[in-house]
Amino acid sequence: MQRKLVFTLLVLSLISAVGCNRKPNLDEARTAIRTADAEWSRAAVANDVDGFMTFVSSKGSMLPPNQPAITGTSAIREWVSAMMSSPGFSISWRSATVEVAESGEMGYTTGSYDLRMQGPDGATISERGKYVTIWEKESDDRWRAVVDTFNSDVPPPAASAPGDTLDPMAK
Amino acid sequence: MQRKLVFTLLVLSLISAVGCNRKPNLDEARTAIRTADAEWSRAAVANDVDGFMTFVSSKGSMLPPNQPAITGTSAIREWVSAMMSSPGFSISWRSATVEVAESGEMGYTTGSYDLRMQGPDGATISERGKYVTIWEKESDDRWRAVVDTFNSDVPPPAASAPGDTLDPMAK
Repeated sequence: MQRKLVFTLLVLSLISAVGCNRKPNLDEARTAIRTADAEWSRAAVANDVDGFMTFVSSKGSMLPPNQPAITGTSAIREWVSAMMSSPGFSISWRSATVEVAESGEMGYTTGSYDLRMQGPDGATISERGKYVTIWEKESDDRWRAVVDTFNSDVPPPAASAPGDTLDPMAK
Repeated sequence: MQRKLVFTLLVLSLISAVGCNRKPNLDEARTAIRTADAEWSRAAVANDVDGFMTFVSSKGSMLPPNQPAITGTSAIREWVSAMMSSPGFSISWRSATVEVAESGEMGYTTGSYDLRMQGPDGATISERGKYVTIWEKESDDRWRAVVDTFNSDVPPPAASAPGDTLDPMAK
């Protein structure tokens, strides 16, 4: 009778132990995401398309302003290659917020970017803006961007008329 | 001796059961996020500022294009109120992707929005774009937006010169 009880409890303990994932270390996860975000920016600064792409998930989407979403690594690679080879182009960014889900496999960063590119008249256009990246820890334990989107902090140079921005308080 | 073993196993079972959260129902969580996103859009369509704000976390940030981030419910309320009371303004959106972390307390939606507002000449400006919202399930079990950002799918009307968009392939 008591032997049966011991056996039952032993089985229950095992089931609990197996069914229950170990709690992920969220500080470690946040550090890993912050590091991935910083290394991703360094690859962008270096105009390193291959390096850039190592941080993009195979199911990744980029959502840049003033054009439709770009989905899939081959379309993203094409877009990034074209951008990095355009004259005067440079971009860097820095995370401000890094958050991670309690399960430790999904997280996000927000931060600000600095972009330079050559305008139509050859002069350098500088733009500061903000971004949101959603990260997932993939099966090889590396964090990659599944969604990345950004937009400018300032109205476009040509659009200084009221009504051209989404800020009605600016009128 | 065996009684001691039974007691030990009983304690171990209880520790496992308490230390181990029940696995959240992720289908339910995705449905809840999708529903919150749709109800949030309906509040926006109805120009219902109070209704809109019930979907914004107290630690929420809105990251609209062409202006700095707006952080905190009072600043977000002021921004939304001004936008909803501006002539000819209307917005609605529809989620396309709904994802949730395995822990069931963080998730995100992406989708497309339709925006109308009155331009400087009184004519209606229509804009289609995309958005990303990061959701958290808060202590009252309601999902609220902690980060919301969006941008247009098309170049701004006044900025048709090459170099004004971030798409070098459009040149």
